[in-house]
Amino acid sequence: SDTQFSERARQRQQVLTKPRGSLGQLEDVAITLAGLQRTQQPQVDPVRIAVFAADHGVCAEGISAYPQEVTAQMIANFASGGAAISVLARELGASLEVVNLGTVGDVPPLTDVRDEQIAAGTANLATTDAMTPNQLEQALASGDKAAARAADDGCRLFMGGDMGIGNTTSATAIACALLEQSPENLAGPGTGLDAAGVSRKCEVIARALAKHGNNRDSLTVLASLGGFEIAALASAIMGSAARGIPVLVDGFIVSVAALVAVRQQPNLREWLLFAHRSAEPGHQAVLDALDARPLLDLGMRLGEGSGAAVAVPLLRSACALHNQMASFADAGVTDKEGN
Amino acid sequence: SDTQFSERARQRQQVLTKPRGSLGQLEDVAITLAGLQRTQQPQVDPVRIAVFAADHGVCAEGISAYPQEVTAQMIANFASGGAAISVLARELGASLEVVNLGTVGDVPPLTDVRDEQIAAGTANLATTDAMTPNQLEQALASGDKAAARAADDGCRLFMGGDMGIGNTTSATAIACALLEQSPENLAGPGTGLDAAGVSRKCEVIARALAKHGNNRDSLTVLASLGGFEIAALASAIMGSAARGIPVLVDGFIVSVAALVAVRQQPNLREWLLFAHRSAEPGHQAVLDALDARPLLDLGMRLGEGSGAAVAVPLLRSACALHNQMASFADAGVTDKEGN
Repeated sequence: SDTQFSERARQRQQVLTKPRGSLGQLEDVAITLAGLQRTQQPQVDPVRIAVFAADHGVCAEGISAYPQEVTAQMIANFASGGAAISVLARELGASLEVVNLGTVGDVPPLTDVRDEQIAAGTANLATTDAMTPNQLEQALASGDKAAARAADDGCRLFMGGDMGIGNTTSATAIACALLEQSPENLAGPGTGLDAAGVSRKCEVIARALAKHGNNRDSLTVLASLGGFEIAALASAIMGSAARGIPVLVDGFIVSVAALVAVRQQPNLREWLLFAHRSAEPGHQAVLDALDARPLLDLGMRLGEGSGAAVAVPLLRSACALHNQMASFADAGVTDKEGN
Repeated sequence: SDTQFSERARQRQQVLTKPRGSLGQLEDVAITLAGLQRTQQPQVDPVRIAVFAADHGVCAEGISAYPQEVTAQMIANFASGGAAISVLARELGASLEVVNLGTVGDVPPLTDVRDEQIAAGTANLATTDAMTPNQLEQALASGDKAAARAADDGCRLFMGGDMGIGNTTSATAIACALLEQSPENLAGPGTGLDAAGVSRKCEVIARALAKHGNNRDSLTVLASLGGFEIAALASAIMGSAARGIPVLVDGFIVSVAALVAVRQQPNLREWLLFAHRSAEPGHQAVLDALDARPLLDLGMRLGEGSGAAVAVPLLRSACALHNQMASFADAGVTDKEGN
């Protein structure tokens, strides 16, 4: 970020007609965006939402409350406008891209869905590498292309979303590997496992961690334990930051992708804003590792980028207040010191 | 609220294409609004924001970081569009009313400001009753008229805001009286007092509480310790609920007004949604007393209804998701139980 612009934004916040600091985190958002965008008038529109979908071989271990066919069905639901992220994108006036990286169920050709299928889902991370090196490369390329499109379209904010039955198992395994935590500390119910289901999920992740050893290189961890969509999200985050587009990070899955991205490129951390704290219990540890304090804490745990979408109006409000409020001098209002 | 409509809304949330409960508090908001509005399609627009402004005689005790003339100056700032709530109302497309209940400084006649001045501020609550019975009646009438206008205009959501240098002292005194708490537990920096200022504020409130005795009737407490704007806010909340308009409660000052309203009419509690947790430390005790869990916790402490305005898009998102998402059956998506 450009300290000249962030410093100027900080000074402006001091002279707007309000007690200093009284807009709380909204002041920080405006200052951060001003610095990143190198502008005195930060703004987030146009907003790009890119949802990456893929299936997970680890579903063979019975770790999800939903059958795997739901991934493909939800892709169709995104396209027909009935999914949560479809509704939110429409309400926001944000452009929504859906990228299919490979499902078990067939997805009919759909306008509005990019077919970038790599394979019919990853392999089972509990027994083998989830991806081949070539598959990892393809997933990373899909993510980077999404960032490139956002840049080409002049987007000022990028948000990624995920869809993939079984992906909290993959994301939790990645977080365990990168944060050197045990599955018991991070695994949760995902879409709705009961206690026995969470136990089984922990056991599957423990087996995977034992199998794949202690290599902490984040791309190696991605290939061993990742989903195609998590790899693409990590790459899209790196690609957005590299192209100067701030990223609004969604919940658990996207935060794990952000952790991978930051482990690859520590300097991109400053490009990340965090939308919400997920109800998925492992999210807090990932947020802590990223030194992130999200804007919202609504008990959401839906994925698709829905938590980030719900937070977009807060960023818009922060920018509008920063750009449009009168200063004490302009409004003829006496300041605290009686100036 | 109508349990038939809220029950139907609850059932609908169960069949939308998402894991059950995964929209967290947004599901609760939609269900609550559906019940209150007796509809299957809850919505919050048109939104009315009414900001009540007044001065406080207790400023003679030196309890505010800002001089009293700021109240009148800020009324002019509301009218010219430069205040935080002006910006937010414009961005939301919400109608903003500003009601002047009485300032020390002169306010020139302003279009867009309702002149309902009662007196040039309240009397000093540390030494006498803040209002006469007649003044209290006038303030209550102003609040009720604002609710009546919102109903006449077909508003589906009412939000009150406050402006009045010194009003955290008044609101804290009311909260202390109604919650039987000591000032040390509830008083805070308001617009920016240092530790010595907060001490002085506690001492002033303690003197006021000692003077006005133990009568806990909330209207009596209002007259003794209140501000005109706090009385009007309490009445506007009662009037909105009575007319079937849900109320989105802002931060510390409006929550104290809501506490007064609920003490008067306990059944109106269900009409209240809570927007945010203020950085003002006494707010939590008031929220606890109202059994309220606000949507946002952004460290805001500006007043004017700004915290409520920032939360409006969350209510809109909750309604849009409820009204527009596809069900499992409609979208052909397999449900958790494999239906």
